[in-house]
Amino acid sequence: MKKFILTEDELPRQWYNILPDLPAPLPPYLHPVTYEPLRPEDLAALLPQAVIEQEFSPERWIDIPEQVRDIYRMWRPSPLCRADRLEKALDTPAKIYFKFEGVSPAGSHKPNTAIPQVYYNAREGVRRVTTETGAGQWGSALSFAGSLFDVAVTVYMVRASYEQKPYRRSLMHTWGAEVFASPSERTQAGRDILAKDAESPGSLGIAISEAVEDALAHDDTRFALGSAMNHVVLHQTVIGLEARRQFELAGDYPDVVIGCVGGGSNFSGLAFPFMADRLSGERPGTRFVAAEPTACPTLTRGAYAYDYPDAAGLGPLLPMRTVGHGFMPAPIHAGGLRFHGDAPTMCALHDKGYIEARAYEQTEVFAEAVRFARHEGFVIAPESAHALRGAVQEALAAKETGEERTILFGLSGHGHFDLAAYDSYLAGKLEDYTIPQSQLEAALSELPKAGRL
Amino acid sequence: MKKFILTEDELPRQWYNILPDLPAPLPPYLHPVTYEPLRPEDLAALLPQAVIEQEFSPERWIDIPEQVRDIYRMWRPSPLCRADRLEKALDTPAKIYFKFEGVSPAGSHKPNTAIPQVYYNAREGVRRVTTETGAGQWGSALSFAGSLFDVAVTVYMVRASYEQKPYRRSLMHTWGAEVFASPSERTQAGRDILAKDAESPGSLGIAISEAVEDALAHDDTRFALGSAMNHVVLHQTVIGLEARRQFELAGDYPDVVIGCVGGGSNFSGLAFPFMADRLSGERPGTRFVAAEPTACPTLTRGAYAYDYPDAAGLGPLLPMRTVGHGFMPAPIHAGGLRFHGDAPTMCALHDKGYIEARAYEQTEVFAEAVRFARHEGFVIAPESAHALRGAVQEALAAKETGEERTILFGLSGHGHFDLAAYDSYLAGKLEDYTIPQSQLEAALSELPKAGRL
Repeated sequence: MKKFILTEDELPRQWYNILPDLPAPLPPYLHPVTYEPLRPEDLAALLPQAVIEQEFSPERWIDIPEQVRDIYRMWRPSPLCRADRLEKALDTPAKIYFKFEGVSPAGSHKPNTAIPQVYYNAREGVRRVTTETGAGQWGSALSFAGSLFDVAVTVYMVRASYEQKPYRRSLMHTWGAEVFASPSERTQAGRDILAKDAESPGSLGIAISEAVEDALAHDDTRFALGSAMNHVVLHQTVIGLEARRQFELAGDYPDVVIGCVGGGSNFSGLAFPFMADRLSGERPGTRFVAAEPTACPTLTRGAYAYDYPDAAGLGPLLPMRTVGHGFMPAPIHAGGLRFHGDAPTMCALHDKGYIEARAYEQTEVFAEAVRFARHEGFVIAPESAHALRGAVQEALAAKETGEERTILFGLSGHGHFDLAAYDSYLAGKLEDYTIPQSQLEAALSELPKAGRL
Repeated sequence: MKKFILTEDELPRQWYNILPDLPAPLPPYLHPVTYEPLRPEDLAALLPQAVIEQEFSPERWIDIPEQVRDIYRMWRPSPLCRADRLEKALDTPAKIYFKFEGVSPAGSHKPNTAIPQVYYNAREGVRRVTTETGAGQWGSALSFAGSLFDVAVTVYMVRASYEQKPYRRSLMHTWGAEVFASPSERTQAGRDILAKDAESPGSLGIAISEAVEDALAHDDTRFALGSAMNHVVLHQTVIGLEARRQFELAGDYPDVVIGCVGGGSNFSGLAFPFMADRLSGERPGTRFVAAEPTACPTLTRGAYAYDYPDAAGLGPLLPMRTVGHGFMPAPIHAGGLRFHGDAPTMCALHDKGYIEARAYEQTEVFAEAVRFARHEGFVIAPESAHALRGAVQEALAAKETGEERTILFGLSGHGHFDLAAYDSYLAGKLEDYTIPQSQLEAALSELPKAGRL
């Protein structure tokens, strides 16, 4: 394996904001009740001012605060690696590179935005942030960030995960956060659900409702979101900015950039700095591939429409590719990819043909993850293995045509907390889940009336 | 946090062998039955020839094969980090550095020796290696190495761990190894134990017996050991060699080097390159501190005597500090530190006063691990937290005297598979275990009659 390492001095000083470079202006967010364009002040009770400004900023480059860069240095710049053993195993003329975000203390790319979000909250005097988490990647990243800035963190964790995945919960506790199984008795939203079903396993939508209600009920408290919105994507561009510089060191440039898509911030964070080169005309031929699970096929089978980010319909209406905010994805092991919508910027580029999308079944994804572990050593997250699957497809296509092709995929996290899933795969017990058309149509029929795009 | 990063070109090309530099010749190993000095050929059925040569080599520098360096590059050179947030939290004038081995695919320093051991086996036509594992760090490192060289790996895993710690077993399976709960029906040693006690939880000693018997019974099979012996320590010196170079980059040099001690290879791998500077007279004032658990106090309360490396008495008699091969350590969470003896080279230096030793209770160790996580982000292995505890003691002593002191400790692995232990600590359920003198004396009374040193 060959690694391309940047010095700490080469850690980016600015994030890249794609908003001013989009081929067409992003459709506005809408107020969830009035359907009027959302005003920045509508978010003031939920997010700190600096984050709201970033959400709507027309500036191409936004400075990364030194205090944030100082913490990024714990694990950044992250390595860009050439997977030459995998190339040999595939017998392909293609070159496969991966950008490895699993080296962060929380084990994924999530701290890239958790750190600045908590930093801005702390700077504005916020004493506590609330959030939701499913499998726990985002909750642990926010807990880690909170511990460094002395900001309390309250996590509403989907009850099914809370009970089945105790170790990410332990991780949050180790960093000093409080973690509640959702639905909980702490909020009206939680109590309402429990009154109907005392055994409710919870959902991301319910957990968001609880976290939002908790934040709105306390002046010193704000809410933090782990994906989809512009400011989250902005913070994640540190990944792609580093990768672009590392390709200069390698004397190479990707022909195709591949990332997995849950809410879209991991994909966009890696891809957008390269997308900038395509949009500027400097690298017009670069392709971009978004890899998603067949169990939650937002880009490949969803509608491009206004939809809520949460199941309860509390958040602003976002212009996105969605399978419907009421969609209940199957219990696949790539928990980070079970979100019903995607980042508006990414969806706008997908709509204009700049991004291809592919959906994969989880058995093919785990087969690649195991092959990767046996050739490249690292045991990776099932989410990241979707991007790997896309990379292998590209490498095999290049072999077919005998063509050199430089492939970059995002390895967004390690799989140390996913070994029960590897076990299931190795025991032949993993199921595939392609969504029946009727289920998809039922979920899409409940889209808000703000309209399709 | 400040990191000191080496380029891949700076990855060491040779390991450092301390044997020729010891202040007095190492007492010879003895044959387990005859008590005569062990001959290299006595190990031929167990270890590959190249490894046996390294075990007894008088050469100070031994080349690292290019194929091994190529795999080391997956995660090496590993970072040297300055824990400046922890320094601030302690309000100490001391500087605290740590060398971070948790970045390897198996999550610890163990692959540093697993890779060359499997490489030499493969080069000599060995098709399969067997080993024992307790909590699973060593077994997973060897499984990882086996997957890269197409050498089959058979792991005998202590049954209690096999059942209670399924995720390291999953890791070994992911890398393609076969893993058996020990005692098993596969060997005479295992069957003998099961005949007496069908519910036996197993022990490291029994697992070694099974792995050795399996290797001896098959011509194409050898045994691999994860610590204590000279060749293992040799391979681990890549850690200290990198660290010494990284201190040059930092313009600094440690006043004290601290490592945790199970079998001693992690400590020695970090310390011996610095010890060479002390032995040569170039850095005569450097101190070395070995941190061990009170539950298995080999250096602080053991005897310096000949003892077997395994409970069944199959291995050669090693001149070491030991609490007796029949000693049953309490079930502390730092499973990697529950070995009854230590590396002979390390023990010789300890005996001559070059190495200080301290024993810690596990609650104080976990308290440091949690403080570290909340200031430096990383959730570390309980084993490594013993070294951290030693480093914090040194930093607080420096604060007491107002003295600058440069501290280096070995962070040998991450704690992603130890979160149940963190849970117990945070819930106040962790117990301390200081060994009663009577238990220690009983174990020491069973030392072989080859004598004290």
